[in-house]
Amino acid sequence: MFFASDNGGPAHSQVMQALLDANAGYASAYGADPIMETVRRRIRDVFEAPQAEVFLVATGTAANVLILGTLCQPWQTVFCSTMSHIQEDECNAPEFFTGGAKLTLVETEQARMTPDTLRRAIEAEETRGVHGPQRGPVSITQATEKGTVHRVEDIRALSAVARDYGLKVHLDGARFANALVALDCTPAEMTWKAGVDAVSFGGTKNGALGVEACVFFNPEDAASFPFRRKRGAHLFSKHRYLSAQMNAYLTDDLWLDMARSANAAGQRLLRGLQQMPDVTVLHEPPANLLFFDAPRSMHRRALDGGALYYVMGGDPHDGPDDEMLTGRLVCDWSCEDAAVDELLGLLRG
Amino acid sequence: MFFASDNGGPAHSQVMQALLDANAGYASAYGADPIMETVRRRIRDVFEAPQAEVFLVATGTAANVLILGTLCQPWQTVFCSTMSHIQEDECNAPEFFTGGAKLTLVETEQARMTPDTLRRAIEAEETRGVHGPQRGPVSITQATEKGTVHRVEDIRALSAVARDYGLKVHLDGARFANALVALDCTPAEMTWKAGVDAVSFGGTKNGALGVEACVFFNPEDAASFPFRRKRGAHLFSKHRYLSAQMNAYLTDDLWLDMARSANAAGQRLLRGLQQMPDVTVLHEPPANLLFFDAPRSMHRRALDGGALYYVMGGDPHDGPDDEMLTGRLVCDWSCEDAAVDELLGLLRG
Amino acid sequence: MFFASDNGGPAHSQVMQALLDANAGYASAYGADPIMETVRRRIRDVFEAPQAEVFLVATGTAANVLILGTLCQPWQTVFCSTMSHIQEDECNAPEFFTGGAKLTLVETEQARMTPDTLRRAIEAEETRGVHGPQRGPVSITQATEKGTVHRVEDIRALSAVARDYGLKVHLDGARFANALVALDCTPAEMTWKAGVDAVSFGGTKNGALGVEACVFFNPEDAASFPFRRKRGAHLFSKHRYLSAQMNAYLTDDLWLDMARSANAAGQRLLRGLQQMPDVTVLHEPPANLLFFDAPRSMHRRALDGGALYYVMGGDPHDGPDDEMLTGRLVCDWSCEDAAVDELLGLLRG
Amino acid sequence: MFFASDNGGPAHSQVMQALLDANAGYASAYGADPIMETVRRRIRDVFEAPQAEVFLVATGTAANVLILGTLCQPWQTVFCSTMSHIQEDECNAPEFFTGGAKLTLVETEQARMTPDTLRRAIEAEETRGVHGPQRGPVSITQATEKGTVHRVEDIRALSAVARDYGLKVHLDGARFANALVALDCTPAEMTWKAGVDAVSFGGTKNGALGVEACVFFNPEDAASFPFRRKRGAHLFSKHRYLSAQMNAYLTDDLWLDMARSANAAGQRLLRGLQQMPDVTVLHEPPANLLFFDAPRSMHRRALDGGALYYVMGGDPHDGPDDEMLTGRLVCDWSCEDAAVDELLGLLRG
Repeated sequence: MFFASDNGGPAHSQVMQALLDANAGYASAYGADPIMETVRRRIRDVFEAPQAEVFLVATGTAANVLILGTLCQPWQTVFCSTMSHIQEDECNAPEFFTGGAKLTLVETEQARMTPDTLRRAIEAEETRGVHGPQRGPVSITQATEKGTVHRVEDIRALSAVARDYGLKVHLDGARFANALVALDCTPAEMTWKAGVDAVSFGGTKNGALGVEACVFFNPEDAASFPFRRKRGAHLFSKHRYLSAQMNAYLTDDLWLDMARSANAAGQRLLRGLQQMPDVTVLHEPPANLLFFDAPRSMHRRALDGGALYYVMGGDPHDGPDDEMLTGRLVCDWSCEDAAVDELLGLLRG
Repeated sequence: MFFASDNGGPAHSQVMQALLDANAGYASAYGADPIMETVRRRIRDVFEAPQAEVFLVATGTAANVLILGTLCQPWQTVFCSTMSHIQEDECNAPEFFTGGAKLTLVETEQARMTPDTLRRAIEAEETRGVHGPQRGPVSITQATEKGTVHRVEDIRALSAVARDYGLKVHLDGARFANALVALDCTPAEMTWKAGVDAVSFGGTKNGALGVEACVFFNPEDAASFPFRRKRGAHLFSKHRYLSAQMNAYLTDDLWLDMARSANAAGQRLLRGLQQMPDVTVLHEPPANLLFFDAPRSMHRRALDGGALYYVMGGDPHDGPDDEMLTGRLVCDWSCEDAAVDELLGLLRG
Repeated sequence: MFFASDNGGPAHSQVMQALLDANAGYASAYGADPIMETVRRRIRDVFEAPQAEVFLVATGTAANVLILGTLCQPWQTVFCSTMSHIQEDECNAPEFFTGGAKLTLVETEQARMTPDTLRRAIEAEETRGVHGPQRGPVSITQATEKGTVHRVEDIRALSAVARDYGLKVHLDGARFANALVALDCTPAEMTWKAGVDAVSFGGTKNGALGVEACVFFNPEDAASFPFRRKRGAHLFSKHRYLSAQMNAYLTDDLWLDMARSANAAGQRLLRGLQQMPDVTVLHEPPANLLFFDAPRSMHRRALDGGALYYVMGGDPHDGPDDEMLTGRLVCDWSCEDAAVDELLGLLRG
Repeated sequence: MFFASDNGGPAHSQVMQALLDANAGYASAYGADPIMETVRRRIRDVFEAPQAEVFLVATGTAANVLILGTLCQPWQTVFCSTMSHIQEDECNAPEFFTGGAKLTLVETEQARMTPDTLRRAIEAEETRGVHGPQRGPVSITQATEKGTVHRVEDIRALSAVARDYGLKVHLDGARFANALVALDCTPAEMTWKAGVDAVSFGGTKNGALGVEACVFFNPEDAASFPFRRKRGAHLFSKHRYLSAQMNAYLTDDLWLDMARSANAAGQRLLRGLQQMPDVTVLHEPPANLLFFDAPRSMHRRALDGGALYYVMGGDPHDGPDDEMLTGRLVCDWSCEDAAVDELLGLLRG
């Protein structure tokens, strides 16, 4: 019963098979492999963006910070949510790869910046001439770090605010697929049609071994990316193994199927938790990640029974039984109904 | 007939199998996977260095620059050969990851710094108080970018010079295995017993998909490495796939066997070239990488016949037939005698 | 009637005379001038810190960020107030000079972090392993950007929190002298005796042309400072002109006299404003900088009458007469009673 | 007898007087002072460049590295001479302010890059796709670090090479005035008419306390400069004291008069040295800085007699009398004939 993260699960067998298939003979290095040509075409098709520039890297943080480096000057500030991955979980990589830009934290509702909170944050910067940081790009996480999802109109509204100030929009899509299938919209609708300029299009958390695509809808934005990727030491020599993963991921809608599986498991969990009187699910999340408050005794029972997930707010094994602690549950594509039901059973007691 | 680079070849089937084996069920992320424990132990055993700190990354450049970042302050300079990979082929990644350190280029003989050239370069720095860069680590490439190999006593002599000035020694071992089997010595003899403090221990060029170990023989040198790796976006969430590659690589001497194959192919090429009257092999290299001068017409014949390798000094298809151009040939672990012989046949005409 | 900033006023004539005196003949460059020896001794005496390391730079931002660079690693975060100069007014210089560290903004009361808000902020970091930033130094501004002053026990309490986590403490003393004379304590009491490790000791805002001392109470903390200053391009060749300013500043308590003058003018303003029924003085500041709310019509009258100061919250010349806007008034050492009274007269109408 | 550097001498009395004059009353900060308006106009006039963008900083290194930051991307390399100040004497500040660019060292004749050596260096870069650094700006020092001067046609020829590759040209003019009066040309002829894009226009070494102008002939090149200066902590609050220095420097050709004095002293030294049989003057320099080889005994006599200058190649007080050592002599604007003659007398014995 592993619910600690969607990066703890295995890669899909079709992804593994693609690696094996790609392993025959020689191939040009550094992104000049033929599979990359296919990947580029597929991603352009998926996004209905024939001009898009596409690059592969191996980690989600690399995708985020290399994109932010291209969109942000060192004397600017990135507008992002207070709980964004780039703020909380990348060990200052955004600052490093932008050459020292700042992150301005924007208040959220349900882990989502709102047009109002974003506008206020933007308005508060670039008010002191050269003394303060200048306004830089807006970074939106979809799905959010709390499991909530921006509706297409939410993204459109945030982008509209950014556009009012001439700012670029980045989408951290580490869980892009989970959000997409939850919304039942197209990738284009969730991105460039809603004003997004560049996307970290995640594969790692959704059934790949380690691959993310950096997608720029305006090719000119991407001009410096190849140099930034190389000097960031993120250009793979045996690049075909990145290409192969992404190719399999996009073939026959595998990526969407995996996201649907993960979300279905997440929703099964959600329904189960909602029926427990002592449990409060936070944020009503529609995808594969959820937070819930429950008494310590419930968490302890689940963990002692073999469930693996993070508990915040206190030690689940030390303190009053009825103190409420917050658990985080993440379902990956391989999560089975039996595991969900077993966890629910443990929590129920 | 692919001789363009040892990063163009496939991964070994045992490495691929290890990936498949590692793909079962859930595993802790970010290096806390159980296979990493095995890898750490194996590398300590291989190097006879039970205290060594070991970290995995996916690219050779990442290994080099993350290690240099830990060993070098931003106001120092790294002493390296004029043709070192960190100078020539990493797009300023060393400068980026050290926070702006300089590289001082040291003259070579057969692509190797000598104790004299190194000492002169060191002596020329730190002579101007705070105005010039301060002396930083020495970085040695083994095998070198020209296919030559430092003997153990060469490394010992270079390290001794570094020690005279209190400087740390880094070994760029992208082709560590090829050098090792050429020298027929132990990893310990080629590294810490010869004064090396930290090694980029390459797997990618020698049969892995993409994995390198950063090995620090003095644990205190590695204190900042975990933070540097994370903020460099080089910490893999699904780390088990790095661990599995390295584990297979080290199992049953697979790494040594592959290096021996590659070197054997290289030596077969060398012997063949040495028998051609119009050809001059540069540097007499003992491993899997060699440079040779030959008339344009020979290169043209080989390339037109289907051989893939780099030619320098002019366009192999445009110019006088008898002008001498330099070719670079690299044999990877999977290079077969038939391919070598076919190339030699084409060159011979 | 210039109340826009204490960096708009002239330098004191004794400082100017010191420049003239220092201008005779030749002097060693880059801080080896004999006056610097005197300055070092004087600052050690002033702070009762015979081991302190002392360096001069020309701008307050340079002092802050060079000190923070020595105290903070690139993967750490600096704890500072939401309105600190390093956050608001240094155009990402702290991020630049620390190599990409983050700033964690701590809530304030009267522009002062409290032990509780500081502790909460520290507790919230370094909770996510290598993923989040690591805890770095605490930076306190004295006097604060809102004109309030930390009592000695306030600094001691903040430092005690920092010490609980092994963190260093920096004091941004751009208005050190104004705070000191307001508190009527010794420099030692306000700094190292209260747990401060390093001080930006300002001269520029208090009667110098442009000089700040960076004072480290633990010499080992300063080891990298000379290199950081030089590579920051902040080491003056004709350093004697920095030394001469600081020397005059410290001679015969000139610095304290100037701060007392500035504070007296500030307090005269404060008393005058407090007697105006439509005016609310914010924060009850004890030194030379104050913020006050007043109707637009009052601000307009003062500005139209020739007063120079910043008005925030709206255009003082456009909008309803009775809307309250915030003015910022700063008195420098040269501010005369007549100017204060004239401003008060204009405001009164 | 101070010949150690032109940064050891005093400022000119007219510069000091200008500081006193500027010290009356209040002035707007951060470059908005009225004197800066005059300075901007004067520099545009001096350079016959009405569109030029002009900024003041306090150190020569700041001028160089802030300009290079605007002209160079982090993944590029600056082409400069092997003995350039930016390479030798700025403690990696160029690397720091460019975000990690490299410096490619170009061989010189008489301390000057030649069109051939420059072209070869440029040709050798940007040959390895994204792997090597990309070609960045060319930086020329005028007068050179060895006291030689590029003729106008030399600068034009170097710029022409740069233009062939689309590269920008920076002129490090720490000794701009000394070169200019030696050449007897106009500032425009020595800069933009000869293909220079941006100049570090030095004042510090030539009679100011510490001021340098950064002059951009193409305003668009300067777009990021204000932010770079501020985040480099190089924007002075009490900017009027920089403005006043530069204003006096440019008034009534004071800068040219001072350079002529310094050069005259240098030439008097040169003629004296040329008449000494045991002395070899290196490079035949036309300005205020020269290097000469002389026996140890001569150097010892001069130093023991009270002369101050740098001796390279050995300890002047320890070794055989007749070993040749190299002395460096620099004359500043205040250097008097008597001092020159006294030094010559000591050398002569």
